[in-house]
Amino acid sequence: MKSMDGTSQALLLRHDDRGVATLTLNRPELRNALSVATMTAVEDALAAIAKDTGVKVVVLAGAGPGFCAGHDLRELRANPSKQYYEAVFAQCSRMMMRIVALPQPVIARVHGIATAAGCQLVATCDLAVASDQARFATSGINVGLFCSTPAVAVSRAIGRKAAMEMLLTGDFISADEAHRIGLVNRVVPAADLDDAVATLARRVASQLPSAMALGKQSFYRQVDMDLAAAYRDAGEAMVRNMLDRDTEAGIDAFIAKRPPPWQQQ
Amino acid sequence: MKSMDGTSQALLLRHDDRGVATLTLNRPELRNALSVATMTAVEDALAAIAKDTGVKVVVLAGAGPGFCAGHDLRELRANPSKQYYEAVFAQCSRMMMRIVALPQPVIARVHGIATAAGCQLVATCDLAVASDQARFATSGINVGLFCSTPAVAVSRAIGRKAAMEMLLTGDFISADEAHRIGLVNRVVPAADLDDAVATLARRVASQLPSAMALGKQSFYRQVDMDLAAAYRDAGEAMVRNMLDRDTEAGIDAFIAKRPPPWQQQ
Amino acid sequence: MKSMDGTSQALLLRHDDRGVATLTLNRPELRNALSVATMTAVEDALAAIAKDTGVKVVVLAGAGPGFCAGHDLRELRANPSKQYYEAVFAQCSRMMMRIVALPQPVIARVHGIATAAGCQLVATCDLAVASDQARFATSGINVGLFCSTPAVAVSRAIGRKAAMEMLLTGDFISADEAHRIGLVNRVVPAADLDDAVATLARRVASQLPSAMALGKQSFYRQVDMDLAAAYRDAGEAMVRNMLDRDTEAGIDAFIAKRPPPWQQQ
Repeated sequence: MKSMDGTSQALLLRHDDRGVATLTLNRPELRNALSVATMTAVEDALAAIAKDTGVKVVVLAGAGPGFCAGHDLRELRANPSKQYYEAVFAQCSRMMMRIVALPQPVIARVHGIATAAGCQLVATCDLAVASDQARFATSGINVGLFCSTPAVAVSRAIGRKAAMEMLLTGDFISADEAHRIGLVNRVVPAADLDDAVATLARRVASQLPSAMALGKQSFYRQVDMDLAAAYRDAGEAMVRNMLDRDTEAGIDAFIAKRPPPWQQQ
Repeated sequence: MKSMDGTSQALLLRHDDRGVATLTLNRPELRNALSVATMTAVEDALAAIAKDTGVKVVVLAGAGPGFCAGHDLRELRANPSKQYYEAVFAQCSRMMMRIVALPQPVIARVHGIATAAGCQLVATCDLAVASDQARFATSGINVGLFCSTPAVAVSRAIGRKAAMEMLLTGDFISADEAHRIGLVNRVVPAADLDDAVATLARRVASQLPSAMALGKQSFYRQVDMDLAAAYRDAGEAMVRNMLDRDTEAGIDAFIAKRPPPWQQQ
Repeated sequence: MKSMDGTSQALLLRHDDRGVATLTLNRPELRNALSVATMTAVEDALAAIAKDTGVKVVVLAGAGPGFCAGHDLRELRANPSKQYYEAVFAQCSRMMMRIVALPQPVIARVHGIATAAGCQLVATCDLAVASDQARFATSGINVGLFCSTPAVAVSRAIGRKAAMEMLLTGDFISADEAHRIGLVNRVVPAADLDDAVATLARRVASQLPSAMALGKQSFYRQVDMDLAAAYRDAGEAMVRNMLDRDTEAGIDAFIAKRPPPWQQQ
């Protein structure tokens, strides 16, 4: 593990292993609350990874007992101005959209609580694996702050009735319920979480990065379009993907019943 | 219980209890079919509640054996003109959108059949609790009238395959299936329905009304936007919410490990 | 069974039985891969059915061990030009949108693998019934070709997390998982597949075709609109539907507790 900055505290840890970059939120005593400094560290890390062709998939994790408790409410209240609030929420939304825009797939590794903007992180990541000990809430309403920005991500990941229940009650849901409603891809015993994340990350990392980058970008563009426009956008992505030399080699290998070049030892 | 109008028949009953306003459709012999007069009574009640700061959450219920059987087909056929049909469906859509626009959350209490526009009511409410005796159908197709306007709400609450199956077959689904596909939040034995509704209503009523109003409005606006626009809209809602004096007090209480002022006795 | 063309090979079979037209992809040795000729045959068949008032519902099936393996990669690679790729993907998207635009409901009968554009076919059909032997994958990524156009249909049928897992891993999911996430309406033992499809097809074929056509078209238009626009569109569909003579007769029969005319023997 190395710190993302050379200074006093490592707010975000990055660990790279064979194409899998694991980013670990590292303010365990604050349940990895998203202070401005932490969000900046995440944004910087994502900017670096976006240009790092050695990274094929990103895992987002949290140190200590929780995954992420959302915004740092103490910091927000210590700066009680409209300008500050605007800057903080704009930064948080930008950070979320950078996950969406990142060429590499991002997997949330959720081992504990994921609340408010922490739950939004789970909803925003392309994939999510949860421990059976994980719990999820859009809990801002409990302090009088409706999770409106988390709702953007949550309402795009799960159904409206389930989203509104989380938003209006602020109550926790279990990992199994999160799986049932589509917020996470799978739930495993806590002891198996690292294996499950590693298996999924390895699987994704074995695929062609240029194809995943092209496809991921088209995916999130087309979901906001009407059907005909979506097909035009996705059709262009398919053609560009077909013209990729690596893809040509992959298809030719498939026809010849060989594994694709990028998976050959 | 008091009638919403001073006249002969109480088409809609309203009962208020500690911030929870329960509206009960009251044409039990017609399974609470949505005649023009009934829809007008609902619209009037919602308009009054929208301005009633004493109401923190609304429960929508039905008297007698059914929750709501949809439009009053006899009334429709007794007025067989394009103008009349246009007026009736426009009113119904307006009533549904008033539920969406209402500052207070609305919970459907579904104890029996909810068909056609009655199923649309369930899909439109922010939350829904069903008895295990409840059944749901977009059954208009059985008389040759595809439930196109109910489909607007249903297709936004559940997946397309499930929606199309209901719309094309007209068949009933069980409460458990309605839960599985996301049409209702929870299913309980018939004997426990009132308790389950009351528990959920109390929970929601314990939250800060101004925050719920702001959040609910942003929620339904942003779901119709692309991602960047959605985050802009929701970000503005967050900032406005943060500047609410009650929210400031709620966050400060949280930091001090106290309950928020509005939940203190 | 009759061939759709008078020439050498019947790429698509059509069998009509009491209002149910079954189209069977018939390149079993290639798992019914979607060559240009096959897609043209499907397009031609849909164009004919759109004008065939004798057809009330369409079943889409596959001959041999698989349902449909997606594009014909050999054919694509034998014509490695941007123009050819553009033409093929444009045709495929057009074929998919013709299913959406077809007046009659379309049911996918999935007995075996449905991969890439084959999985897209399942996602595109209005309804889908699967054998417990069926398996589903957006497997293009395994050869370096992200399933961007299949993603258009898949992301509109199921949740984003489930869609991204299929798209990024390329892994198969079971029929039960496809049901859990909403990709298919029901799963039955392989031996019961034909009965289950026939029962559903009969049920849908018993409904009023003009109402289904009007409703299906409004359904797929309104899902791409904001709420107010959706209600305007659907409201117009309701009024037109009410003015249908058959619908008037259907409602009058219902009021008189008789079956609708089109279901009377």
